[in-house]
Amino acid sequence: MIKITQTARARAGEITPQMELVAEKEAASSEFIRTGVAAGRIVIPANINHPALKPIGIGRSLTTKINANIGNSTLSSCPALELEKLRTALGYGADTVMDLSTGANIVNIRKTIIANSPVPIGTVPVYEALSRVSSSEELNDELIVGVIREQAKQGVDYITIHAGLLLEHVPLAKRRKLRIVSRGGSILAKWMTTHNRENPYYTNFDRILEICAEYDVTISLGDGMRPGCLADASDRAQFAELGVLGELVSRCRAAAVQVMVEGPGHIPLDEIEMNMKREQELCDDAPFYILGPVVVDCAPGYDHITSAIGAALGAFHGAAMLCYVTPKEHLGLPNAEDVRNGVIAYKIAAHAADIGRKRPGARDRDDAISDARAGFDWEKQFDLALDPARARQLRDESLREQNISEEPPQDGKKSYCTMCGPEFCSMRISSEL
Amino acid sequence: MIKITQTARARAGEITPQMELVAEKEAASSEFIRTGVAAGRIVIPANINHPALKPIGIGRSLTTKINANIGNSTLSSCPALELEKLRTALGYGADTVMDLSTGANIVNIRKTIIANSPVPIGTVPVYEALSRVSSSEELNDELIVGVIREQAKQGVDYITIHAGLLLEHVPLAKRRKLRIVSRGGSILAKWMTTHNRENPYYTNFDRILEICAEYDVTISLGDGMRPGCLADASDRAQFAELGVLGELVSRCRAAAVQVMVEGPGHIPLDEIEMNMKREQELCDDAPFYILGPVVVDCAPGYDHITSAIGAALGAFHGAAMLCYVTPKEHLGLPNAEDVRNGVIAYKIAAHAADIGRKRPGARDRDDAISDARAGFDWEKQFDLALDPARARQLRDESLREQNISEEPPQDGKKSYCTMCGPEFCSMRISSEL
Repeated sequence: MIKITQTARARAGEITPQMELVAEKEAASSEFIRTGVAAGRIVIPANINHPALKPIGIGRSLTTKINANIGNSTLSSCPALELEKLRTALGYGADTVMDLSTGANIVNIRKTIIANSPVPIGTVPVYEALSRVSSSEELNDELIVGVIREQAKQGVDYITIHAGLLLEHVPLAKRRKLRIVSRGGSILAKWMTTHNRENPYYTNFDRILEICAEYDVTISLGDGMRPGCLADASDRAQFAELGVLGELVSRCRAAAVQVMVEGPGHIPLDEIEMNMKREQELCDDAPFYILGPVVVDCAPGYDHITSAIGAALGAFHGAAMLCYVTPKEHLGLPNAEDVRNGVIAYKIAAHAADIGRKRPGARDRDDAISDARAGFDWEKQFDLALDPARARQLRDESLREQNISEEPPQDGKKSYCTMCGPEFCSMRISSEL
Repeated sequence: MIKITQTARARAGEITPQMELVAEKEAASSEFIRTGVAAGRIVIPANINHPALKPIGIGRSLTTKINANIGNSTLSSCPALELEKLRTALGYGADTVMDLSTGANIVNIRKTIIANSPVPIGTVPVYEALSRVSSSEELNDELIVGVIREQAKQGVDYITIHAGLLLEHVPLAKRRKLRIVSRGGSILAKWMTTHNRENPYYTNFDRILEICAEYDVTISLGDGMRPGCLADASDRAQFAELGVLGELVSRCRAAAVQVMVEGPGHIPLDEIEMNMKREQELCDDAPFYILGPVVVDCAPGYDHITSAIGAALGAFHGAAMLCYVTPKEHLGLPNAEDVRNGVIAYKIAAHAADIGRKRPGARDRDDAISDARAGFDWEKQFDLALDPARARQLRDESLREQNISEEPPQDGKKSYCTMCGPEFCSMRISSEL
């Protein structure tokens, strides 16, 4: 096997251009990045066939990253719409994007996305495999491995494979309220029980490692048993699979293939810290890439908020990357506006965690916007906002509703904001102390 | 002094009708509520002149409560609009409402609000006092105490008074990036430094206690020094005031007046637990009523989300009531739609904390909606949602965008959801295991 992965090169003592770039972005030394990559605590998803990529590092010693999922369904498909979602996700600051398309034109949509994306692109290969056959029963080893090879060649930076959900785990899922809510997990479980055979990702793991090593595709070990509701959280099914994921992390590292681990899901607030620690122990500190977690089941339409709460706490306790959840979660396919709301909610969660973990410089932007507030400098506040357009829009709406044609004139620090009017402006009054 | 307050009656061994109602709502024994009220760990804001009230209990041994602020500004005022905001806040589940009006018609707006509100109504009396004079310098003891007496007589259930911000604390605020962002706090600080006199709430505290005891008005000790940005969090100014609030809690309890304590503000994620514990120690476990806290300064337009993260964590660590923050925070006056978004974000935060604190029955609604999901019962999911209209709206939007005219027909458990289509519906596939 040719040793071209970041892991292999880091172990050989080489500081790659990708490591240099990550070090610069993280204000860390390149040696710090190299040792992290060598040990597997940091991954840099960077397929050798993705020339548009500007690499990022993922690991709990770095700033928290966020991922945005896009992709069509079998019921609707429009490449232009997916490109619009990609641009929205990138524009608001997604660090990686997963194309979860399951419908028509999967290959061409992904080709367009990879060509247009400076951020790492992830996929769930079993979706494409399933799209090529008429039912999940017809999946087979060659198809599954073949799709991974094609995607690796095409330039996919990381792939989610649910290799830890074994045949013996399936009965554990049947006791649950919501059984298996992972699409990939449910497809594999159905296949395994139909054929009474072991998970094909698991039985073909060495072949998959060879492919990933060849193109430096990072493996993201999917959690097919992630709980789909609070009642199913932190149960035997979830942790039985996590134990297998820990073993697979070791096999990836032995093959010098980069690996991260995916996590829940729906988890109550009091179990989030325990879940983060458990992964760090069982998976030897492989970067943890979590979905939410959603901390309340009963707020469809607001799951970007229910999950941002869980995500902030997850990252604070060590998750390395947060997969966003949009307001459409549990309801339908997100559109571009949902992508925007999801990305911003997750930028907030990641940023809150980075401030709480005292990452160097994490609070600089906040201090700058606070200075702008103290100086009644609205334009600067908008410029520093995570979503300047939204801030301006709400400000304009408020002025219009109060029939105020423009901001009050500034007179040194003696201005005031129209939220309270001059007599009740705390900022103005306290500037006079 | 006639001993009519809930505190006095609880100490005398009486279980009042208000305590009975609270016990019923909380699924607790009335004796548990009585001892909590007697000790001051629980308050039941219930002015004897608020006949429309359906009492609630506030304390960290009970379910987490949320407050919604409404009210006009000196720049715009419309009683009908405030009533619309009140109905929105009540409709989405606010447990208390504060009328923060500073503009025209304060007395009449409040009268309408109290008459129409089954939930406790709070105010900040210094706003009305200031509205009666031409500048904050003209405030005086008689005006301040007089306004409190009138509001108490009118039926206000709780009043925020910034009695702990002393003259000696003002220099501490001058070192801050944002000095004093509490409106009441800044008005009092300005008055104190102008006249070189002590805080009039502090010097008149015994007279205020007499009024509150007469009508059973609950005192909410305001935190005039709450930090207005992360850079000012957990500083000397904030904790110097909190120490005084602790002394004032003792004086309230000695007078058998119900009391809670208000808290920050802007606090980084890693300091929230410490802030909750500090209040419990310094204020002898008086119910802590916190504003947010906002955990990120740079997301104007999304502060309902930045603060819901902090609020969930605050309640998890012991805050008893959460004052909502709307998307308009830092930008303008909220309208009815902002009130809706703020209330729902805080229902989520409070609910997440109650589940995390394992309050009896806290997860029932979540389990029910999860069962509805497992059964593909969309109507039941909507009915159980915190905001059914929003969930329906997003669902309809998604169906429309995918050109699907209606939900797929149900066929026992063999239905599927249009998010993924039948081949990729994890719920459908795993129901077949």
